[in-house]
Amino acid sequence: MLTYLNPGQSQHAPRFEFFRGERVPCFEGPARADFVEQALRARGHALRMPEVDSTPQLERIHTPRYLCFLRTAWDQWLALGAANADVQPFPSVWPVRTLRSDVEPANFTARLGLYSMDNGSPLSAGTWAAAKMAADAAASAAQALQGGERAAFCATRPPGHHAGPDFMGGYCFLNNAAVAAQALRDGGAARVAVLDVDYHHGNGTQAIFYDRADVLFVSIHGDPRTEYPFYLGHADETGAGEGAGCNLNLPLPAGSSAATWFAALEAACARVARHRADALVVSLGLDTFAGDPISTFQLQAADFTCLGQRLRRLGLPVIFVLEGGYAAAALGENAVCVLEGFET
Amino acid sequence: MLTYLNPGQSQHAPRFEFFRGERVPCFEGPARADFVEQALRARGHALRMPEVDSTPQLERIHTPRYLCFLRTAWDQWLALGAANADVQPFPSVWPVRTLRSDVEPANFTARLGLYSMDNGSPLSAGTWAAAKMAADAAASAAQALQGGERAAFCATRPPGHHAGPDFMGGYCFLNNAAVAAQALRDGGAARVAVLDVDYHHGNGTQAIFYDRADVLFVSIHGDPRTEYPFYLGHADETGAGEGAGCNLNLPLPAGSSAATWFAALEAACARVARHRADALVVSLGLDTFAGDPISTFQLQAADFTCLGQRLRRLGLPVIFVLEGGYAAAALGENAVCVLEGFET
Repeated sequence: MLTYLNPGQSQHAPRFEFFRGERVPCFEGPARADFVEQALRARGHALRMPEVDSTPQLERIHTPRYLCFLRTAWDQWLALGAANADVQPFPSVWPVRTLRSDVEPANFTARLGLYSMDNGSPLSAGTWAAAKMAADAAASAAQALQGGERAAFCATRPPGHHAGPDFMGGYCFLNNAAVAAQALRDGGAARVAVLDVDYHHGNGTQAIFYDRADVLFVSIHGDPRTEYPFYLGHADETGAGEGAGCNLNLPLPAGSSAATWFAALEAACARVARHRADALVVSLGLDTFAGDPISTFQLQAADFTCLGQRLRRLGLPVIFVLEGGYAAAALGENAVCVLEGFET
Repeated sequence: MLTYLNPGQSQHAPRFEFFRGERVPCFEGPARADFVEQALRARGHALRMPEVDSTPQLERIHTPRYLCFLRTAWDQWLALGAANADVQPFPSVWPVRTLRSDVEPANFTARLGLYSMDNGSPLSAGTWAAAKMAADAAASAAQALQGGERAAFCATRPPGHHAGPDFMGGYCFLNNAAVAAQALRDGGAARVAVLDVDYHHGNGTQAIFYDRADVLFVSIHGDPRTEYPFYLGHADETGAGEGAGCNLNLPLPAGSSAATWFAALEAACARVARHRADALVVSLGLDTFAGDPISTFQLQAADFTCLGQRLRRLGLPVIFVLEGGYAAAALGENAVCVLEGFET
């Protein structure tokens, strides 16, 4: 399958994150994309670099102040002291209920909290460069589909589906799947569907399109009552305003079997079909894999082949965008299973 | 001055907090109250223990689900594993914009994030017991004023003014000053004023009374553009609904001199006088002291005497409630200065 890599992905390489209150090595790191690239090369997939600037789409889906912050955040951090080059900044306070988000603080840590939903999205020197090139890959894939390609895969990181209109979260900075969907719309598709199969609910993508009827959002994920991101992804979130009815969440209990998961996939595909979309974006998280270290679903490699086959039957042009998946060594094989299931 | 101690204060003794992304020993610890008690004893002030249950006031100012969580949080944490007795729980994700606060997650860390505004309010085994007794002291002080006392001091911790209707923050769990104000109202005062002189804006107290006309909130504090809590405390926050006009923020630049501070105090006192309050609650943070390790105002001990004298001239019954102040060894002397300034 036509695949876009992110030549800048290794520039986003934070060392630590906070996980359940402890500082631990990052689960989301450059090795993930390396494993996927190796597997794709070994199977002879066509690999390309991003060639389209995603700025027009980024300006549609994220706010100007958030983009400005993210683009300059590392330089702002260095300006506070040269020694900061070796230190990761973390937020410590967040504007929850009754607190204001409309005034941008002059304090850097407070700005970082303003534009974050957690303390699990560490910045490093190359975060903006890497995130921007991942978004460019999504825009490039959309252009390829407009040029007649049946499908394309963005084998990129950092992932994007937790990034909201104006905040980072869950290792995500720019919402690549939303860029792909918006680029398809901008390129002439009247209706687009996003299907998010990551273990974690794609809260950012949902929020970005929640009041729009042109982009359907459907997600199968661990029940947010027990699983990250906790505060979105419930079944009663069905869209608002013009987007009423254009959001479908299919939360499943932690530990769900492949059979349970595929039953939800049928419901998801039925909803996508009803949307009469011109194209589909798949937020391809592979952390539904039984071997994932921070997730609990029970899919095996062969199940990913079935997923690809089922998506093919939708008969739509598809952009696959890599999201999560933290059993890094298995990530390449599992991705290849989805793609080759789709192509055969 | 009649002073209420918190006999349970030493039970709230977390070891670590996160400060600018680093795990550090807690700035807010039992030694603070010990220093104040020593100074008060040395000067012969009348010390009492809380004798009034603050539950009716707590149920007015905090939500039922937050009170339920806080009361049982440590037991919930222990239920996850006996080894947790030696570990502090910290939240890692917060329900900011577009995320939901209306569904309580089943995951403990997610509940902790739901009910927090930061990761700087660590829980320990005795947090509820200590916080509840501090709130009881505030209710006891209100009863003493209703019994004819001119003034009373709650030499208690943990502090309270950052605690909002349904979240902890900034070392605060239950809003003691709000308890005092509500108890005065419940005891017959038609109008109450809260004057917050802590270095940090009392965002919790403001939020609790923001739409009420019966409780005026006035605060002098470091500009939230650069100082904690960052997301509230601006001059344009003047109250809402029935409370329109009943909120006055007087933010001052970091590093402000005593002269600047006392000019703001004049404006604050003028507003309090105009409210025609029956009683005054003072959120007495002493981190405006020049020696405070995490604040930048320039007040000296003699200035605290002047503060007490100025408050006396308002001619109102007063409840002083201890809030912040992290130059622990100077805390007792500075508190005594305020109280004796008021009494002389």
